[in-house]
Amino acid sequence: MRFFSDNAASVHPRVMDALIQANHQDTAYDGDALSARLNGALSDVFGTEVEAMWVATGTAANSLALAALCQSHQGVICHREAHIEQDEAGAPGFYTGGAKLMLLEGEGAKLEASAIEAHCAAIRDDVHQVQPAALSITNASEYGLVYSPAEVASLADVCRQRKLRLHMDGARFANAVARLDCQPADLTWKAGVDVLSFGFVKNGGMGAEALVFFDKDLARETHYRRKQAGHLQSKGRYLAAQILAMLDNDLWLENARAANAGARIIAEAAQGRLMHSVEANENFIRLTAEEAAKLRASGFDFYDWGEGQARLVTSWNQSADDIRPLAEAIAAL
Amino acid sequence: MRFFSDNAASVHPRVMDALIQANHQDTAYDGDALSARLNGALSDVFGTEVEAMWVATGTAANSLALAALCQSHQGVICHREAHIEQDEAGAPGFYTGGAKLMLLEGEGAKLEASAIEAHCAAIRDDVHQVQPAALSITNASEYGLVYSPAEVASLADVCRQRKLRLHMDGARFANAVARLDCQPADLTWKAGVDVLSFGFVKNGGMGAEALVFFDKDLARETHYRRKQAGHLQSKGRYLAAQILAMLDNDLWLENARAANAGARIIAEAAQGRLMHSVEANENFIRLTAEEAAKLRASGFDFYDWGEGQARLVTSWNQSADDIRPLAEAIAAL
Amino acid sequence: MRFFSDNAASVHPRVMDALIQANHQDTAYDGDALSARLNGALSDVFGTEVEAMWVATGTAANSLALAALCQSHQGVICHREAHIEQDEAGAPGFYTGGAKLMLLEGEGAKLEASAIEAHCAAIRDDVHQVQPAALSITNASEYGLVYSPAEVASLADVCRQRKLRLHMDGARFANAVARLDCQPADLTWKAGVDVLSFGFVKNGGMGAEALVFFDKDLARETHYRRKQAGHLQSKGRYLAAQILAMLDNDLWLENARAANAGARIIAEAAQGRLMHSVEANENFIRLTAEEAAKLRASGFDFYDWGEGQARLVTSWNQSADDIRPLAEAIAAL
Amino acid sequence: MRFFSDNAASVHPRVMDALIQANHQDTAYDGDALSARLNGALSDVFGTEVEAMWVATGTAANSLALAALCQSHQGVICHREAHIEQDEAGAPGFYTGGAKLMLLEGEGAKLEASAIEAHCAAIRDDVHQVQPAALSITNASEYGLVYSPAEVASLADVCRQRKLRLHMDGARFANAVARLDCQPADLTWKAGVDVLSFGFVKNGGMGAEALVFFDKDLARETHYRRKQAGHLQSKGRYLAAQILAMLDNDLWLENARAANAGARIIAEAAQGRLMHSVEANENFIRLTAEEAAKLRASGFDFYDWGEGQARLVTSWNQSADDIRPLAEAIAAL
Repeated sequence: MRFFSDNAASVHPRVMDALIQANHQDTAYDGDALSARLNGALSDVFGTEVEAMWVATGTAANSLALAALCQSHQGVICHREAHIEQDEAGAPGFYTGGAKLMLLEGEGAKLEASAIEAHCAAIRDDVHQVQPAALSITNASEYGLVYSPAEVASLADVCRQRKLRLHMDGARFANAVARLDCQPADLTWKAGVDVLSFGFVKNGGMGAEALVFFDKDLARETHYRRKQAGHLQSKGRYLAAQILAMLDNDLWLENARAANAGARIIAEAAQGRLMHSVEANENFIRLTAEEAAKLRASGFDFYDWGEGQARLVTSWNQSADDIRPLAEAIAAL
Repeated sequence: MRFFSDNAASVHPRVMDALIQANHQDTAYDGDALSARLNGALSDVFGTEVEAMWVATGTAANSLALAALCQSHQGVICHREAHIEQDEAGAPGFYTGGAKLMLLEGEGAKLEASAIEAHCAAIRDDVHQVQPAALSITNASEYGLVYSPAEVASLADVCRQRKLRLHMDGARFANAVARLDCQPADLTWKAGVDVLSFGFVKNGGMGAEALVFFDKDLARETHYRRKQAGHLQSKGRYLAAQILAMLDNDLWLENARAANAGARIIAEAAQGRLMHSVEANENFIRLTAEEAAKLRASGFDFYDWGEGQARLVTSWNQSADDIRPLAEAIAAL
Repeated sequence: MRFFSDNAASVHPRVMDALIQANHQDTAYDGDALSARLNGALSDVFGTEVEAMWVATGTAANSLALAALCQSHQGVICHREAHIEQDEAGAPGFYTGGAKLMLLEGEGAKLEASAIEAHCAAIRDDVHQVQPAALSITNASEYGLVYSPAEVASLADVCRQRKLRLHMDGARFANAVARLDCQPADLTWKAGVDVLSFGFVKNGGMGAEALVFFDKDLARETHYRRKQAGHLQSKGRYLAAQILAMLDNDLWLENARAANAGARIIAEAAQGRLMHSVEANENFIRLTAEEAAKLRASGFDFYDWGEGQARLVTSWNQSADDIRPLAEAIAAL
Repeated sequence: MRFFSDNAASVHPRVMDALIQANHQDTAYDGDALSARLNGALSDVFGTEVEAMWVATGTAANSLALAALCQSHQGVICHREAHIEQDEAGAPGFYTGGAKLMLLEGEGAKLEASAIEAHCAAIRDDVHQVQPAALSITNASEYGLVYSPAEVASLADVCRQRKLRLHMDGARFANAVARLDCQPADLTWKAGVDVLSFGFVKNGGMGAEALVFFDKDLARETHYRRKQAGHLQSKGRYLAAQILAMLDNDLWLENARAANAGARIIAEAAQGRLMHSVEANENFIRLTAEEAAKLRASGFDFYDWGEGQARLVTSWNQSADDIRPLAEAIAAL
């Protein structure tokens, strides 16, 4: 059983069905009937008029978002362990023509308003130092913690004062919303988010994420940048189909709830080992090399997270029955 | 009936089946079993060991290829009507950090060795002028003409003398091979091509092209650039599956032959109107506004190609029966 | 005697004196007393409040200007023989992160409104084609012709309609103003120019050009970009000193008039050979290889401008007596 | 008296004289007699054949060096307080198209081999993480400490093992050599340095630094990049003249010794306040706000270096008599 990453999971049958249903001729690029429904469907989810685009990867969504917020000579504040810093091969630098990621610390890969304020205050307002233009936060965070609407709003306050735009990397946005049981609006534009990378690939999709602009002026140039970056697919209707299937009947929430529930089962078994509270679909646990080897010998696959630590990710398609053997194996260590 | 573009066609059932077959958990990115087969399958097609990568779009394939061949201060020679110049929103400039496309003329969007040689000879070898580093040709060309192996080789000769690397944009490579009835090897590495964008999307795929390096040293850095550009999909196995399905039993050639055959039917009906000889799956014909309106009124959809001209593209999924009504309507004009 | 280029000439003694006078300790970067006077001095010249920056080269001035006007996915319209296209090693592409130069034709390296309008009209307004964002013209042009205020205004009209910003490469702006005997204001902001590269190096300076923004909003980010590009010199006061010395008592016009007058002497002798009318300080003449060799044998140095053609540039420091021998030699051919 | 920065000092009279001597017509760009002497003069200084270029600023020198060593998707390891990170407005990111600076800690802004090794060891060798391609160290460091030849060599050892190229930011290279009383060769290529930014502006120059390549293959493309970045000055002979004047009779060492000696005078007076040992021409001292105000009231100008700290920089043109009043004022606090 694999707990390596939710991005290794299969595609949800309803997403697959949607691809099959979409398989007829239609206009290329954004000109098809499914793509035409995207803004509306996402506007419904967020309770406000948004402008959205499908892209194939979270890295593309994040980078296009940052390129809309930040110029080459500016900076993006983020957590030192943010995906954009750790796992995207320098994509933000490439997309912005050299903008700098400004790395802050914070428990559980979450940032606090005070840290952002302190960082900004320490930057001289002259041309020699890179000036920050945006803040990027990840919700759920890289350690599976969630920002509440109030927490996002407190960060947005600093942004307003410091003239920063606010991006949310929502590769696991669904898991955050599922955990918080809140309205998507409350966690995003109502809290001050300008643009959201809304992930589906880790949550049952195949190769489609939504880049959602709450500030539509920001979206305008991004249509060109998406094409310039080679991310406008001619058969984009198959990406739109995935997203629409995920939104339909809140499949995205259903899947996220399942993944989160699975993580709870492990968390209960791993109580004393937890390095972070388990709020989404990830467990980070202390595990000696011997213990790790033992689990692997029993057929469990996962990610070594530095020495003596492991990451266990649950996916939409893992049932309680699938997960219980791992929980028991951990408890038995 | 749509003759607007082959990129509006549906996905071939065997490609769809491959996606369904691939729908189980596997390692993310390039780590899965299908992606692992890609180099081998393409090496078989080309009769030499190649290094290949899946990407979602032709623009991505072309841009990553050019970024491997050309630095920011250098240039890429191509036809003035090349897709990389006309239809990719400046992608080559973005991917190379500013390299210049050097635009040459040539019948039917094909380049001749003499034009390339003349262009190179006119550039002063100093730091003020951009020096060309690569040649990019499209086969089949933007006007549906094919370069024969001998023609490619003659261009490659100039490249060798002028120290240019050679890229082939093969968005319709299948149509060219089908037309020439040659070995893929003869049209590529044996003729001097360094890297090929091998298109499948226009030929029955959904969202997967193969970027094929015949010079494996060039491929090395491209793995990083693909990720940096957001083109490494975590569920890449679904792209590998498409390409493998297209290669399996030469489906790519079967589809291309069908599309080419369709174009021939139109070409025969449109004899006196043809602006270019019809070698692949595109007809460019003279058509007055009134004639165009008449065809559209009869339910035929196509692209206006400047004043008094039209482009008619046939696709893998259009049978002779599908196409005959258009041919007859044209003949009846 | 050298007629190769005005950028090979020596530095005017009053500029040299200004450097010597400036040689004491002062605040670095833009913080010194001389740099503080720059905006005022140039605002006086242009009769309106401008925001200006010193940079060392025309290429830097042009590139920073274009980077302020044009994003990576956009284009800059210019003449095919513009300096930014021919002689700057791809600098505009580098500074803009890949923007495209869109090359138009026009007599004497000058553009006409109709050509710009036709070019814009032919671009589809979609994300596949690069959309132009700016027009760059050179005054005096690469062939030593000048745009009159009315001509600039007619181009600016198209710019307004097509939402293009207007840049003037004024490497030889002084020669143009001297020829036209007009107010600098009439040739720039009153005619619709947004930003001017105001050259001094070819006109008696050592290594200082002024980048002059008539739209001050455009200037704001350029201060950062100048630093990011390594063009903010710590001892910038020595650049400010040069520019101020050139402006003082209209030395820039005095020098330009001298250079223009020199070109007239040659032009009169070369009547039947002229390829362009001689309006600034450059003669482009028909000259066989034998004739060219003969002139060189007599000690005259100049630039071969393609086959059977030569460029002869006069400089601020060449008197009528200096130039007459060349004129006579040409007349005697 | 100003102790704010050595880059505010005046230009040495012999440099000024050299400019005056150079003031006659000569070929533009690198074609003049002085530029032609640059490689030879610097090869003499370093006891090996080098390829060198003049540029106007240290930021340009550093950025061009890094662009030669590092691609967009790679990283440059440097100290968190390195000038390239703190004071160059994101220039490395711009010049490399997005490469990442990887920030390490170390006493006195110096790096140790173990820190570099640990950093490299922690990076997974996959395409998701940015891979380092170069190390950049500053000698003398941002806190006025020097790396000895042995220390540089120990860093170069790690570089060799980790396949990193080694850049030295030598904005105050002269001060380091003067302090170490070593051969320039020992501190650079013999110790493993690939490219050096050799500063003159802070040491009596006006606007010229030398970019010195010990690996000549690396230099080749940089000639193009320098032009593309707008850093090839047409009257480059005035930059060459400065550098040659600085090298002539070891003026660069004479000036650096003077500045270093001045710093020693302050250091002795400020013993108990020193935050770092004083090895070059900078004192970093603990100073309360009241003390700072008192010194300023007495006419001394300097840089506040965070709370309770000050930076005092001595320059080539400050004699012991100039400096003693500051030393006495500090001692009297």
